[in-house]
Amino acid sequence: MHGSEKALVLKEKFMTEISRDPSFRSHDIHDLSKEAIRERTMEKFGSMVHYVINEPLREFNLRMQLVSTADPAFWTRFGVHFGLFLGALRGGCTPGQMNYWIEKGAIGLNGVIGCFGMTELAHGSNVAGLETTATLDERTDEFVIHTPHLGATKWWIGGAASTATHCAVFAQLIVKGKKHGVKTFVVQLRDTKTFQLKPGVMIGDIGKKMGRDGIDNGYIQFTHVRIPRAHMLMKHTQVSRDGIVTDPPLAQLTYGALLSGRVGMVADSSNTAKRALTIAVRYAAVRRQFASGKNKLETQLLDYPIHQRRLMPLMAQAIAIGFTSLILTNMYEELTQALETLEPSDPNMHETLEKLKETHATSAGLKAFCTWACLETIEKCRQSCGGHGYSAYSTLPGMYQDFAVQCTWEGDNTILALQAGRSLVSSWESASRGKPLPPGVSYLASTETLTNKSNSKLDLGDIDKGWACVAANAVKKAAVDYARELGKGLSKDEAMERCSQSRFIAAKLHTIGYIFRMVKQAAETHATGPEKDVLVLNAKLYGLWQVEEQGAWFLKYGYFNAQQMDTVQETVDKLCLDLRKIAIPVVDSFAFSDHLVNSPLGRYDGRIYEAYFDQVRASNPPVKEHPYFARLIAPLLNRVNEADDEKDPEEAMGLEEELKELREASQSQKDAPQKVQVVGKGMGGKGVPGGGGSGAGGDVGQVVVDGK
Amino acid sequence: MHGSEKALVLKEKFMTEISRDPSFRSHDIHDLSKEAIRERTMEKFGSMVHYVINEPLREFNLRMQLVSTADPAFWTRFGVHFGLFLGALRGGCTPGQMNYWIEKGAIGLNGVIGCFGMTELAHGSNVAGLETTATLDERTDEFVIHTPHLGATKWWIGGAASTATHCAVFAQLIVKGKKHGVKTFVVQLRDTKTFQLKPGVMIGDIGKKMGRDGIDNGYIQFTHVRIPRAHMLMKHTQVSRDGIVTDPPLAQLTYGALLSGRVGMVADSSNTAKRALTIAVRYAAVRRQFASGKNKLETQLLDYPIHQRRLMPLMAQAIAIGFTSLILTNMYEELTQALETLEPSDPNMHETLEKLKETHATSAGLKAFCTWACLETIEKCRQSCGGHGYSAYSTLPGMYQDFAVQCTWEGDNTILALQAGRSLVSSWESASRGKPLPPGVSYLASTETLTNKSNSKLDLGDIDKGWACVAANAVKKAAVDYARELGKGLSKDEAMERCSQSRFIAAKLHTIGYIFRMVKQAAETHATGPEKDVLVLNAKLYGLWQVEEQGAWFLKYGYFNAQQMDTVQETVDKLCLDLRKIAIPVVDSFAFSDHLVNSPLGRYDGRIYEAYFDQVRASNPPVKEHPYFARLIAPLLNRVNEADDEKDPEEAMGLEEELKELREASQSQKDAPQKVQVVGKGMGGKGVPGGGGSGAGGDVGQVVVDGK
Repeated sequence: MHGSEKALVLKEKFMTEISRDPSFRSHDIHDLSKEAIRERTMEKFGSMVHYVINEPLREFNLRMQLVSTADPAFWTRFGVHFGLFLGALRGGCTPGQMNYWIEKGAIGLNGVIGCFGMTELAHGSNVAGLETTATLDERTDEFVIHTPHLGATKWWIGGAASTATHCAVFAQLIVKGKKHGVKTFVVQLRDTKTFQLKPGVMIGDIGKKMGRDGIDNGYIQFTHVRIPRAHMLMKHTQVSRDGIVTDPPLAQLTYGALLSGRVGMVADSSNTAKRALTIAVRYAAVRRQFASGKNKLETQLLDYPIHQRRLMPLMAQAIAIGFTSLILTNMYEELTQALETLEPSDPNMHETLEKLKETHATSAGLKAFCTWACLETIEKCRQSCGGHGYSAYSTLPGMYQDFAVQCTWEGDNTILALQAGRSLVSSWESASRGKPLPPGVSYLASTETLTNKSNSKLDLGDIDKGWACVAANAVKKAAVDYARELGKGLSKDEAMERCSQSRFIAAKLHTIGYIFRMVKQAAETHATGPEKDVLVLNAKLYGLWQVEEQGAWFLKYGYFNAQQMDTVQETVDKLCLDLRKIAIPVVDSFAFSDHLVNSPLGRYDGRIYEAYFDQVRASNPPVKEHPYFARLIAPLLNRVNEADDEKDPEEAMGLEEELKELREASQSQKDAPQKVQVVGKGMGGKGVPGGGGSGAGGDVGQVVVDGK
Repeated sequence: MHGSEKALVLKEKFMTEISRDPSFRSHDIHDLSKEAIRERTMEKFGSMVHYVINEPLREFNLRMQLVSTADPAFWTRFGVHFGLFLGALRGGCTPGQMNYWIEKGAIGLNGVIGCFGMTELAHGSNVAGLETTATLDERTDEFVIHTPHLGATKWWIGGAASTATHCAVFAQLIVKGKKHGVKTFVVQLRDTKTFQLKPGVMIGDIGKKMGRDGIDNGYIQFTHVRIPRAHMLMKHTQVSRDGIVTDPPLAQLTYGALLSGRVGMVADSSNTAKRALTIAVRYAAVRRQFASGKNKLETQLLDYPIHQRRLMPLMAQAIAIGFTSLILTNMYEELTQALETLEPSDPNMHETLEKLKETHATSAGLKAFCTWACLETIEKCRQSCGGHGYSAYSTLPGMYQDFAVQCTWEGDNTILALQAGRSLVSSWESASRGKPLPPGVSYLASTETLTNKSNSKLDLGDIDKGWACVAANAVKKAAVDYARELGKGLSKDEAMERCSQSRFIAAKLHTIGYIFRMVKQAAETHATGPEKDVLVLNAKLYGLWQVEEQGAWFLKYGYFNAQQMDTVQETVDKLCLDLRKIAIPVVDSFAFSDHLVNSPLGRYDGRIYEAYFDQVRASNPPVKEHPYFARLIAPLLNRVNEADDEKDPEEAMGLEEELKELREASQSQKDAPQKVQVVGKGMGGKGVPGGGGSGAGGDVGQVVVDGK
């Protein structure tokens, strides 16, 4: 599960280090204000900068993977510079430009702290539609960066509010009045000595978020900010001194940049789900509720079949996603290496690009369905802890709040799923024209032969064939729907939109089948002995539980019949029980320290009530004085009998008698001149505003004309 | 949707009132600390106490329903006294006891503020297993209330931390050494004048939660606290002066108390979902992303078929649940009236109790699946707003965090679903023995004739038959599974646990079918003209979308075949488009004021970006001085060249030369006595701790033996 023994040893080393690093203390984080979390998060930069400079990249990446599970907000804030900003430079700089920024200190935060200015208030998914402008001023050889209107305000920019000195700004390149599409420009935001905003730069804090409050997201408005022409990143598109724009020959190569984030998020989905399950499974082993007979100890939650149903499939899923992420990471690393050495004349060019396209599409689907699966796992784990899962100290609420954004950033999940679906439809069309398919979708070519009744052994092979069958049929349906819409004379894009529900289903079934194949492969090839048995159990449970979840497609495409679906249900029940028996050692094998898990409900030693009580008590010490008893509670609790207040006000005022007097006075003055002021007894000599004669008071004869 | 015109007029009156009530100001709540929210929440008691005293109950209940959607934490804190505490008194007091507590001021918070001491640290669902004890001391005619160990600490008690003066404590009644089960006792917690804790009462704050931080949940430990015997609520069980315990003849009548909460939560599920949809649908009508052609305006999100798929079915569901709640509320009110007048000798006794049982079971399933549906709706609405849905100011994160607890309290959803399933299995058994069925499950008796192929008109009647068919078949399967387990010689309880997955599915399908029947009934009987068309559209969309969601059962039980399922998918696509066309007026008809919705993304006037920007800016004013630039950022950003730090330390120290000297000194002293201290040059005269001879420094010859 950890990739290698070395990786596990490293993980344990990293966990010891952060557990002893004072800036990573975690018991008090639930009660910190947003401001305090922000500052605490910045404290962590010190030690991590040390490692980023001194540690081999592969090792450091493993460290960051751990940190992303332990402290998602810090990981984001740190990653804004090291992942996004430096990634933009690496992807977009010429060698000379890169050297320039390295000398400025961009690698070690020593002179440059970067942020990533892509999204705007009115544009997220549609990057090509960004509205910030970068207009070349040929007279001064500068670009003028400008926010033309409110909707073009850079929005959600992590690190902008109070950390960054520079920003990689995505803006519409305008040269000689012509738009050339969105390019990247480095703009200095703040003076590095005084931290004052540079002229024309306006930055504000985005404020409170659902989670990850440790990251200081901000908004940025540029008002005619001038930067040297050389601060445009010119590896792909170049703008010369005299305003000649040269576009790149190979647009596809920018694929690679998106991949890295997705690969990381699949790993994080598995790790975060495992962390949540560590809490829920350990809690369910300690918590007891209801006895099965008189004078018996109450039953452990984990021994209830329904509780096994709530947690064991999620455990199998987290493990399956974990193996998928290991394989995906390897694929990504191989691909990155291949791309780095690739020349346009390379004979492997086509094959590598096809593989890139496939990995890109597969990773889109994986990012979407794995982050959704993880978010759901956290919430189900939280609910499985009953009321205590609602306590912030269980850590599960914070995990949910922190993780939720993964379903949106770096591509909204629904849109990514549809992208994956679009690619599957293309692959289907290729297959139907007899073209060779990349390995990840090779099952598409052989769908017809798979559509047969299983012999209901329900072994890994049967399950695998089943997933291939339903995925292929779902892709076929999407392709047929697409062709039908095209046939109506719609544009390709419009036809794709019209078949989006079918595309979505195709992507979902393809992705689940893909994950299943990965964990099956791990079970069959990488493990031996009892570990193999555990992995086979896991793979089966994941595959069959998902057969239930997606049962409609297995029945619709005739892979299983109704009776076999009953067998599937029985088998899942049994596999849940089997996995329950080893649930505690399996959870232990996730190898999270108590410090990292940071939940009294998920303690390794099972002393949950004591630890939970201690934490609640320590986090909420008694206050010396009630903050609002005197102001708000005492007046309510000790108020005089309301009957006094409710005495008839007419009687209290002696109003009837007054009215009689006033009527008489009115009568005697009826011939007096218009400009009068009648003031009742006890009204303190002030005029009573109101319209004369109309309304409820009209017959009283109070006429106020003066109006002052 | 609002029940009556009068109810809608009242709702609008209530909204105007709270929008002008300064304690209900809502624009700033996202940035308040837990302490500030607590105090703000208490401020709201003043005006609400006024209404609870002066408003007719029906009207006040409508007001509270609105407030529960607008401010769930206040509603909870207020409801702890008026719903739970007073509910416990009403349900458990003799008439004389009730008068006593009314005279003490329990109705108007005038002398008594109550809380509800049921759950304990180690016991939630299993109320009968609570461990707090109430032991009769016959010598003094008192009960001694005691917390015997940590797990018996009263936990999650709303209002306990800083509001309540009294608590309805659920404790094991012990008389003459014998346990008599859990009863209710009123225990004073604090002095009403000084608010000091009474002797023996220890209270702490539970602290930070996922949401609803306005409610002050606390824990309570009792240490031999003495209360008069008369403070036990004795309507059902009586304890006499000489310790004779009399148990009630009719235990069933306590059903009623649980119903009220469930009925309210079904209404709240609909209202809260509608509030979330108001935000998401209005946002999707204003937000544009991607143009379908050059120089075209970008497309409204709401015009994408996939976005319609994301939101329209949820809208149909929220509306369907709304009608279900109206019908359920009426049933509940009729039942409550019937129960109040019921005497043991009444000829309607059996019928009323059967109806109570059925409503109880139905409401259990509705509570579970409606609160789950609402929580999912909030999250899907949040995700459909993209990144902006992650901003606290969108209000959707807070809604999720506040609502999540509804899936747990007053019965964990999974457990409630299983209770509903258990009742369905019993009903099935009754039906198979030829007994008459209560109306809510009457379809169970006629399942055989429903299992036929639909003619695929897909009108409301077809859909209704489909739900009856799959629900009946699922209940049958659960009953068959149960009988099979019983046949293995298991106890009834154990057999029920073994078939819990089938029971769960039966409850789910029954509940969805029930909700469908309710909205179908509303569409067919209560509406006319264009409103009827809208309702029929809604009912169809809800019913057919759920056919897709639960497609496996429709295929498994042969109600639809594969081809018909394709027709269902096409029809849902079309219904989504139809509903999209009227989505804005439908959302407007939910009739929430901007103040109540409290989200710039969901503004009635559509000025989302301006309002969002204004709120972000107002909530996050610029700070005068960076809180940690000097301490944390500057030292990182402007640090000296690290190359200096990395100078070879051996060289810097001149270590080699020193080592040579030391070796020579060691050599010359090798015959000296054991007790030596060797101190290196520049070490400041202090001993260097470390083990002599072993490890990396061993060969240096530094031997420290003294150890001080």
